[in-house]
Order: sequence, then C-alpha cells, then structure tokens
Amino acid sequence: MSDAQSFILTVVCPDAVGIVAAVAGFLTSQNYFIEESTHFGDPDTGTFFMRTRFVPRDQGYSRTAFTAGFAGIATRFGMDWQVHDTRILPRVLILVSKYDHCLNDLLYRYRTGALRMTIPAIVSNHMDLAGLAGWHKVPYFHVPVTPDSKAASESRLLEIAADCQADLIVLARYMQILSPALCEKYPGRVINIHHSFLPGFKGAKPYHEAHRRGVKLIGATAHYVTAELDEGPIIEQAVERADHTMSPDDLAAIGRDVESITLARAVKLQLEHRVFVNGMKTVVLR
Amino acid sequence: MSDAQSFILTVVCPDAVGIVAAVAGFLTSQNYFIEESTHFGDPDTGTFFMRTRFVPRDQGYSRTAFTAGFAGIATRFGMDWQVHDTRILPRVLILVSKYDHCLNDLLYRYRTGALRMTIPAIVSNHMDLAGLAGWHKVPYFHVPVTPDSKAASESRLLEIAADCQADLIVLARYMQILSPALCEKYPGRVINIHHSFLPGFKGAKPYHEAHRRGVKLIGATAHYVTAELDEGPIIEQAVERADHTMSPDDLAAIGRDVESITLARAVKLQLEHRVFVNGMKTVVLR
Amino acid sequence: MSDAQSFILTVVCPDAVGIVAAVAGFLTSQNYFIEESTHFGDPDTGTFFMRTRFVPRDQGYSRTAFTAGFAGIATRFGMDWQVHDTRILPRVLILVSKYDHCLNDLLYRYRTGALRMTIPAIVSNHMDLAGLAGWHKVPYFHVPVTPDSKAASESRLLEIAADCQADLIVLARYMQILSPALCEKYPGRVINIHHSFLPGFKGAKPYHEAHRRGVKLIGATAHYVTAELDEGPIIEQAVERADHTMSPDDLAAIGRDVESITLARAVKLQLEHRVFVNGMKTVVLR
Amino acid sequence: MSDAQSFILTVVCPDAVGIVAAVAGFLTSQNYFIEESTHFGDPDTGTFFMRTRFVPRDQGYSRTAFTAGFAGIATRFGMDWQVHDTRILPRVLILVSKYDHCLNDLLYRYRTGALRMTIPAIVSNHMDLAGLAGWHKVPYFHVPVTPDSKAASESRLLEIAADCQADLIVLARYMQILSPALCEKYPGRVINIHHSFLPGFKGAKPYHEAHRRGVKLIGATAHYVTAELDEGPIIEQAVERADHTMSPDDLAAIGRDVESITLARAVKLQLEHRVFVNGMKTVVLR
Repeated sequence: MSDAQSFILTVVCPDAVGIVAAVAGFLTSQNYFIEESTHFGDPDTGTFFMRTRFVPRDQGYSRTAFTAGFAGIATRFGMDWQVHDTRILPRVLILVSKYDHCLNDLLYRYRTGALRMTIPAIVSNHMDLAGLAGWHKVPYFHVPVTPDSKAASESRLLEIAADCQADLIVLARYMQILSPALCEKYPGRVINIHHSFLPGFKGAKPYHEAHRRGVKLIGATAHYVTAELDEGPIIEQAVERADHTMSPDDLAAIGRDVESITLARAVKLQLEHRVFVNGMKTVVLR
Repeated sequence: MSDAQSFILTVVCPDAVGIVAAVAGFLTSQNYFIEESTHFGDPDTGTFFMRTRFVPRDQGYSRTAFTAGFAGIATRFGMDWQVHDTRILPRVLILVSKYDHCLNDLLYRYRTGALRMTIPAIVSNHMDLAGLAGWHKVPYFHVPVTPDSKAASESRLLEIAADCQADLIVLARYMQILSPALCEKYPGRVINIHHSFLPGFKGAKPYHEAHRRGVKLIGATAHYVTAELDEGPIIEQAVERADHTMSPDDLAAIGRDVESITLARAVKLQLEHRVFVNGMKTVVLR
Repeated sequence: MSDAQSFILTVVCPDAVGIVAAVAGFLTSQNYFIEESTHFGDPDTGTFFMRTRFVPRDQGYSRTAFTAGFAGIATRFGMDWQVHDTRILPRVLILVSKYDHCLNDLLYRYRTGALRMTIPAIVSNHMDLAGLAGWHKVPYFHVPVTPDSKAASESRLLEIAADCQADLIVLARYMQILSPALCEKYPGRVINIHHSFLPGFKGAKPYHEAHRRGVKLIGATAHYVTAELDEGPIIEQAVERADHTMSPDDLAAIGRDVESITLARAVKLQLEHRVFVNGMKTVVLR
Repeated sequence: MSDAQSFILTVVCPDAVGIVAAVAGFLTSQNYFIEESTHFGDPDTGTFFMRTRFVPRDQGYSRTAFTAGFAGIATRFGMDWQVHDTRILPRVLILVSKYDHCLNDLLYRYRTGALRMTIPAIVSNHMDLAGLAGWHKVPYFHVPVTPDSKAASESRLLEIAADCQADLIVLARYMQILSPALCEKYPGRVINIHHSFLPGFKGAKPYHEAHRRGVKLIGATAHYVTAELDEGPIIEQAVERADHTMSPDDLAAIGRDVESITLARAVKLQLEHRVFVNGMKTVVLR
C-alpha cells in the first residue's frame, strides 16, 4: 500500500478503558483501513499514547469531516490529537557549527528520500559549511554568535525559523546553547545530538572524558532540547566499541559515525510521528 | 498491572477493513482493559495477524462467555483465534543430546521464572545430562536412537510428548532429525536452534564451514522445525564477531553463547504467544 | 598447538626503543616459539605493556633458568614481569549475596572449562545460593554481614581468601562494599560487576535510575574494585536495548544477561593475563 | 607520536621460530621505534603474517638502506615483505553504477581525511553520479558496458587503472562482473561490497531473497574479488536487525547503511595494510 495515501493519527490522553475501541471504531466507520497501530499506557503517569496509520478507502479524507466526526471521542477521553498527511513533508531547520558529519549524513538522506522532509534552511554561526549546503541547494544563513550578540543572534534564529515555518529544529552538532525561551517555543520539536551515552559525560568534552575514564564503549544520544542542558528526554542512543589504544581524537572519529546514525534515526522517528514526550522521558511507538 | 490477571488473544484471518475495531470494540464492551495490542497485515499473503493482551475488569473472564460473545466476529472475518490465560504456564518438552549449554540456559531461566513455563520432561538419546536435569527436579527420559531403532525411538518420543501434554517441543541441540510425521503433528510448535546464521551453513558442521570460509561473524538461528531440514520459518537470529585466529573449536565456544541467547529469546517469544507462522516465514508481534 | 604447553609472559615497564626486540630475542634464543604477542605503549604515561604467549621447544621450560636468563633484560628496562604456566589454573574466590545469575553463569563456564580456573570457595553473606554451590561441589562459606559485624566479617573474608590462596576475587553481585584495606591487599585482583554503563548511574539502584531517566540502552560494567566506589579501572562493558514499555524490573531482567556476559568476559580476560592496570584505566591486550 | 613519521612493514613467510625476534631485532638495531606490532601464524597453512608500524629515530629512513639491511632476514625466512610510508597516500580507483550510498560515504571520508587515500578517478557505466564526483573534484570516467562492449569496456577500465596508478580498486556497488583476467591482474587489490551476509544469498537480488526467506538480520560483506563470483576472501561483515514488516525495499534501505559502513571499514583496514590474503580467507591484523 503506497505511503502517498496514508495519514497518521496521534493521540495523547489520560488512560481509560475503551480508547482503542473508540478510535478503531471511528476509523472503520469512515471506511479508513488501519495499516499500523501502536499504543502505550504508562502506568506511572496514567497517560495513554497512540499512533495509527490509516488509508482512506472510497471517498478519501477531508480534515473538516474528520475533525467533526472525531470531536465527540476526543472530548470524551480528553485527547490531545493530530492527523498528519504523509504526503506533506515536514519542514526541518538544521543548525550547525563547523563539524559536518551529521549535516552531511542528514543531507544525504534528504537528497535520496531516506528521510522524508524538506530542509527550508540551514543556519550556522560559521561559514564553513556553506558549500555543502549550496551543493544540496539548501539556503544557508550565517548567524554569528558572540558573547555580546547572543540575544540578537537568537532573535535572528527565531525569525528564520518562523519565516521558513519550521516543524522541527535539528541541532546537528550546533555548538551553542539555546535559551530556555527558544526551547519552550518549540516544545518537543528541537532535537540535539550529544556525543556521549547520557547521562554519562554531560557537557562540553565527552570524548576527552571518555578517554580519561577509560570506557570500553563510546556512545551518542539524540534528545529533545530543554532548558536544562543535556537533560532533555532521550529519543535514541547507540554505542560503539573503544579500547585503550584510542586517543580522544580516535574516539571522536569513531563517535562521528555513531552520532550520525543516532541523529538520523531520531529524526526519522520524529518525521514519522513516533515520538511522544512523557515527562522527562519519551515514548517511541514503533 | 499484574501479569497474573492478563489474557492474550491471538487472531489470524484474511485482511479486511474493520478487524481492529471489531476486536477492540468487543473487548471494551466486556469491560476488558487492553494492555497491549499489535497487529500486522501481510500485503503479500493478504493475511492479518493480531495479538492483544487484556485484563478483565469487574466480573472477570469466563471462556464460555468469551467464546459466545466473540463467535459472531470470528465468523464474520473467518478468524483462527485463541485466548491464553497467562497464569497457566505452557508445558515445554525439551530434547537434548550431549551438548548442555542451551539446556543449562533454559533450565536457569525456568528456575528463576525468566521463562514462564513448566518443563514436564527432558528427553535425550544419551544419559550425559541426566544429572543436570535431576538437580532441577525435571524428569529425564533416556530414549536411545540407533539407525535401526529410529522409528521406535520416535514413537516413544511421541508417547512422552503426549503423556506430558506438551504445548511446545524445544530441540536444545538435539542431534537427531525428526520425521516429517512428527513435525506435522506439532505444526508451529517445535523449535530448533541451528548453530549458524541461516541460510548460510546448513547441515551438520556449520562451525567448521564458517572456519573454512573465513567469515567475520558467526551466528545462530532459532526456527520452527519442518519436514525440510534447516528450512523452517525463522523466529530469531543473532551473531557474534569472529576473526582469523579462531579455530572451529573457538568458533563453537563463542557460538554456544549465541545459541543459548537466541534459543532463549525464541522460546520467550513463543511462550508469550508472539510468533505466528506465515508461510515459510514468521510474524513476530512485539 | 595445544594450550597445555603454553606459557604467558607479561611485562610492564617504562617505554623505550628495543623492548620488543629484547624480549623476542631472548625467547628465540631459548628456542621458545612465540604463538601470540601484543604490546602497547601509552603515550600519556610513557608506560609499556606486553603480553606474549610462547611454547618451549626442545628442552622445555624451567622457571629458574628463565629467570636467570631474563634478569639482564628485566633490569635493563626496569620491568615488572611474570611468567604464567597455562596448565596451572588460577584460583578464583567468588563472592555473592542473593542474586544468582552471575554465579550461575560463572559456574557453568567453570564446569565446562570455558573459564579455565578453579573455584576453591564461594563466600556469601546469605545462605540462599548454597545449593547451587553444592551441586557444583564448591565449598560455600556463609559470612553474614551486619552493620556491627562489618569489620569482623571482612577479617573472616580475608582469612578465607588467604586460606584458599586466591589469585583473583570476583564479586558476582556481592552487595557489600569492601574496605579500602582489602582492595589494597589485592590490587588489580578484585573484579566487580556493576549493573550500569559507568560512569552513568553509579550507586545502588541503577535500573531504577535508568528507568527514571528513560535511557534507550542499559549496560553493565566489569571493573577492578578500588577504594573509591564504582570508580575502579574498567575492564569490559556491554549494553542491550531498552524501551519505554519496560519497568525497572524489566530492565533488571534484561540486565541480568548483560551483567553475566560482561563479567564472564572480564574474568576470561583476567584469567588469560590480558588485563593491566594503567592508572585509573586498563590496558587489555587481545 | 605523529602518523606522519610512521612506516608500516608487512611480512608473509613460512612460520618458524625466531621471526619476531629477527624483525624486531633489526628494527631496533636501526633505531626504529616499534609503535604497533601484530602477527599471526596460521596452524592450518603454516604461514606467518606480520604487520609492524615503526618510527625512525635519529637519521630517519631510507628505502635503500632498509632493503640492504633487511635482505638477509628476508632471505633466511623466505619473506614476502613491503614497507609503506604512511605519508604517501594510497591511490584508490572507485567503480560505481547508479547506487550512490557507498560512493557518498567513501567521498565523505575521503574529503574529511577519515580515509587516508587519494581518489585519482571514479569510473562508472552510467552518468548518474558524475555530479557527486564533480563536487568532490574527482575525475569521472563514463565507461558504458553493453553485452557487446564488455571486453572493450574492461580494456578501457584497465587503461584508466594503469594511467592513474591505482593501488586499490573499490567496487562501490558496481553492477558489473569483472573478468578473471582483471581480478588476477590486481590480486588482493580489488574490494567489492556484497549486499548480503555471505555465504547466504549470493547473486543478484539478496534483499529479495532475504525477504522471501524471512531472515531476522540482514548483512553486508566486503570481500576481495576473485574469479569466482561472491566467493573471494572476506574482509569484513556486519548485520542489522530486520523484521516481518519490512518489504525488500525496506531491507535495501536499512542495508544501505550496513553496506556503507562495512565497505568503509574494509577500505580503512586495507589502507592501513592490515589485510592479508590467506588462501580463500583473510588475516586481519588489528
């Protein structure tokens, strides 16, 4: 069944008996075919999360009609819900500094359609990666950041994000800390890649710390950015083997592959609307 | 929510619009709370597979009542379905020869409750592992197999399986080939561990073959036993790194860990009613 | 070439030109065949580590002759060195509390020869695992620990370790903290398994912490025990995938497999004389 | 110690007592510092393989002087040997067709210095990837292949390889079979990436075969190209998890990442002179 016709319904609400039945019953009553459906009720928070991919049969899909029909169920269960048309690609703003491995990987997956998104712009505090962006025909905005210009730079960043109607902001090794205000403006919509297996080695130089501590695996963590540094909900993590012969630079070289793949996986999960913030954690419905 | 109260419904039927809604609607109408639910419609075979774990609220569960209520839906969609009470532990007959690593692992998980099953008997064509069985207080049946006794031995095996009402037969490195007749008597209920990453290295000496070919990873495959040797539907596979320094014995030593964990995972999936045969493949609903 | 004839030479000294040549030259001059040889010079500490496995040809090996011949080289380079006869199995004292997964795994590998060691005794502060020890015919010493008896208990522990001439002490989920005095008495010879991916989640309840933080991988770390808790040099680490559906108990269940395999690998490396303490890190010569 | 000063000596000869001592003794006599040294004696073939990285002290390195000095040892043990100056980058000719994932990955690692090589040319039987090559400023040669032109095309290929003095030829998903003549002209110097876990799924459509068979892991294999298709000595292999929901296209999408990383690892091992052909297998000295 072609993706082109699919819609994704996401639901978050207090857990209760009958939610799955109500949602599935409604979809079926509209002659929507359920391709995929996953849900999770968190016993700790009493919250229910659901993701359903459906394909309209017969008369197709109209947002107005769906909303009208679904309103009763949504109200009854107190749902926070959305429907995403999979033909409309999410708009992803990418922030970078000088490291290019994550950007290169994201652009490759963008170019080949492995990540189904558009990239309206790349923003960087340096000019180094303008050529890479240019070859992929993605507009590149240079927004320098100095200790004095921090507030002004972030304003400019927000303007660009607004202008290009970003659905998602990805920090692909962007070496600046975002203000709490910005994080709150895009809750659950700013993803960072941290170059360690969190919660180990928070902060600025994780590969040096990993070397100093002599760990036998190094890792990377993709997480939502929140006001508290390196403490946002974790989306995806991966590791690779390390050993005593490796210098911090060697660890960083191996780490680049882990960072790239971990960030790409997290972005893919997000683009497919599989990730839900659940307090300080995530629910990832596969 | 305690497992002790859970039931697992499995459904296989031709794919159609409305199955999820019908099943979820019925469960909700009975005041059953859906804890977990996964399904898959195979576009190649047009077959729908579903596994739902539910907990009765209020008045509890009665098989008679469930069957009566569910009959209409089952008939409408042409369902093959079952409900399993998770408090009733499946009965698993284990077959072994002389290698003890898989048996030791299964018995450990059985003893500690990591695998929720009973083991009514262990059958072997050798006496070597009687002590291990004995320490776990599991009856041990010695059924020797010689070229001449093959048919008689298998009859005896079938008697034992029948006597102990085996729900599942696990070949934990049982070095005898079962007859097609036996395989057909327990369709989708005989699991074997093969010591290679199938379809590579079928047959009797996979570690020698892996050594000869110089592979850089060795693997293990848990699969259902069918009439055709090493061709049954694959349930689970895993690999471990190997290198040029390793002899066939070294590969076998590493392989023992891979075999044990792969078989344990497959048995766990089966005990949780997550595995469905789909032609020559499996559907594993996690 | 059979292991039974092999000897392992380990060397630690300040790095310099000519060490490998001197060692290899000496071994060859004695008609010893070098089967394996690995070394590492740490640029940070200027320390050289070497492990060589050799097989005597002709007249065989005599400790006296070797020492006499090697003395000049050892003195010239300031070597700390040892020769181990691989036919003499190291004596490993195992400490446990109530969790049996690591002990069960170690005993299985001991029983089958996968770990080439003897186990002169198992010590526990509880009686729970006496049966398991008994079935493997390993003496079991019950040394209870209470807040008041802590010093006396440790004295008893040291007595037992001395009586059985332990080469290595393995804490297989022993839930007591050893005194700095004991750690210093067996430097680089006490291995602990910690149930997290250090340095994340130090301390007592790592699976609860992992659950609270919502990590997507859980890990285990085998390390030498030092005076500072969970800070000793790391020998081996491994991880396994986790997800949002898992409770702390689920994480612990998965973690048991990771702990067992990680500890077994670390013990194997140690038994093969591959691990060297290098400040707060290890060098592991494979 | 900077890589810029390092040399790599590789040795292959019949196994014997005294090789390590002779080589290390010679290097030390020349005041060369041994940074890394690994060797392996294959008990099956009686062949000895050695790789040593050394740094000249004092007067530096001269090929003439080294050869003169080493000749006696080389003759005594019947050595096939080479010294590689790590400052001189190997010249790698890349062959592609239409798939760009491996090429993109190799070019990224080339551009960033992660793979220390030059790429004098890219050859393709299609024009599709000329732009990618162009952006990396690598000459792109279009050599079409038709059933009739096969011999002429390969002649042209050989001309290009000769003109650019290729040390290594990498088939980065080049969808043409090379003639035995070409393979013999570059023995142990043509690397292919096959999109399956060999020896499973040889031939043209491994992802379709993997889908048909329902495997739970898919893999990739980097191997030397020999006259016999998909049977050359294996250098590196890796796998990724797959499941029943995945179509052949989904498997191929996951497989692209596995192929890229597996090929990159194999090329890196080759560039570092770590891979030796040993009959139908490889020895990889890490």
